[in-house]
Amino acid sequence: MRAPGGRLARLSVNQQTVKQLPLPELAGACAKFGIAHVGLWRGPVQEYGPEAAARLVRDAGLNVTSLCRGGFLTASDAAARRRALDDNRTAVDEAATLGTGTLVLVSGGLPEGSRDLRGARERIADALAELAPYAGERGVRLAVEPLHPMFASDRCVVSTLGQALDLAERFPPEQVGVVVDTYHVWWDDRAPEEIARAGAGGRLASFQLADWITPLPEGVLLGRGQLGDGAVDLRGFRELVDATGYDAPIEVEIFNPGLWARDGVEVLAETADRFVRHVLPAGLPEA
Amino acid sequence: MRAPGGRLARLSVNQQTVKQLPLPELAGACAKFGIAHVGLWRGPVQEYGPEAAARLVRDAGLNVTSLCRGGFLTASDAAARRRALDDNRTAVDEAATLGTGTLVLVSGGLPEGSRDLRGARERIADALAELAPYAGERGVRLAVEPLHPMFASDRCVVSTLGQALDLAERFPPEQVGVVVDTYHVWWDDRAPEEIARAGAGGRLASFQLADWITPLPEGVLLGRGQLGDGAVDLRGFRELVDATGYDAPIEVEIFNPGLWARDGVEVLAETADRFVRHVLPAGLPEA
Repeated sequence: MRAPGGRLARLSVNQQTVKQLPLPELAGACAKFGIAHVGLWRGPVQEYGPEAAARLVRDAGLNVTSLCRGGFLTASDAAARRRALDDNRTAVDEAATLGTGTLVLVSGGLPEGSRDLRGARERIADALAELAPYAGERGVRLAVEPLHPMFASDRCVVSTLGQALDLAERFPPEQVGVVVDTYHVWWDDRAPEEIARAGAGGRLASFQLADWITPLPEGVLLGRGQLGDGAVDLRGFRELVDATGYDAPIEVEIFNPGLWARDGVEVLAETADRFVRHVLPAGLPEA
Repeated sequence: MRAPGGRLARLSVNQQTVKQLPLPELAGACAKFGIAHVGLWRGPVQEYGPEAAARLVRDAGLNVTSLCRGGFLTASDAAARRRALDDNRTAVDEAATLGTGTLVLVSGGLPEGSRDLRGARERIADALAELAPYAGERGVRLAVEPLHPMFASDRCVVSTLGQALDLAERFPPEQVGVVVDTYHVWWDDRAPEEIARAGAGGRLASFQLADWITPLPEGVLLGRGQLGDGAVDLRGFRELVDATGYDAPIEVEIFNPGLWARDGVEVLAETADRFVRHVLPAGLPEA
């Protein structure tokens, strides 16, 4: 593997993929492999301290492609709603501190006892109306991430790229965009046209990769597959996204206890190798 | 609970919901509660013998609303494909023997190692072209069931009602229809318009109910909820389906080990009660 500018120039490693590596070790391993981009999560960033984390990645020469995650904006009672908005403003501040222009939003599921998907989706739009200008003023774009429909009740009522765009398009494109994560949209025959729609509207804020493997584990959250191990045509999705003119980094975000149990540096090397073999154009020269 | 014609007039109990009840016991319990319709599965029907099963349900005065299931039509090698077509012709024959006009098809997942969803969906269309006339000649309609996108790789590449209709509409409506199962489509904001499309085209072959509950169990197949226990607006879906002019029976099909571990007659009574309370119009008079 080579320096940035080579075949890994567009690879961004989301820190959840190798969460066994504390931030300094992750930065060191990225330098070793010539990986120039990372996606960060609020939990580990807060543990480290956002300013300290920002200094660390800056000193390591790393670019932060996104911060995960804000959102959970579907509460129907006023106090919970206010807390969610406050927390999301904090998340915007953290993103700005880290120097990333992208805050990923996982919208939230149905409130306890509710069966009103449409109402929950409308509350997200209301929350975006409050948060989008705040984010825009700080140079941060809110990136609405559709999650696989199996998360619709308990985690994210935004289940398709089409729904995410319907929400995002109510706001200026520099304030609200969408995330395309292959794990969540791979099954959807409308995904190609929605990716084109996102690109045409300047809404493509983040492109993330994970593979789909079965059987799904209990709770289904931690069942994502290493690139190339599953059913997703990763190269095909990368081509669809590139065809819109998107040339930004591509984040690999895998939640998988099997990967977390292994040596993190080894998993990082494997991930980089899989990225080259399953995502990049076949036969791309070294640099 | 009362005789058919009362509030349970439209209730059909899919035998998987109370699979602890052998067919004679199921028939007896249905008579006790005034349930006039059942949905059957090929496995238990074959164990019993299709002719004997047909005689039994006929003698009990039961109407068979559907036979589950044919399908698994996505194999790409010729021998597996031929076996699947033969098996589906047998399933059509069994449906005809049972006197039901509806054979539910679960399309099949991706072949081992394949990432070509589009190709798999086209092979289903090819198989329907072979099977539809055979079914039509025997008074049986093939009912394409979209399964939740979490089954897309290993069980059913047809993930939305829109996709199912795109397939069905290539064939005459009396030969190929679709299934609307709330468990599989509840999350989809396009489901209302697709239900209307199915109704307008005379494609609504079966309407099935189960509720969505979390956490999903490992493998996710047996995680369906009893009516009223979950996130699905069952009454709202029944209203959408009824608005198309559909007035046929409504099948309750729940795969849940918790229900199977209980007394089957008690579960049947509970299911009938939930059907009245969560599916029928509120305040409907007894009869």
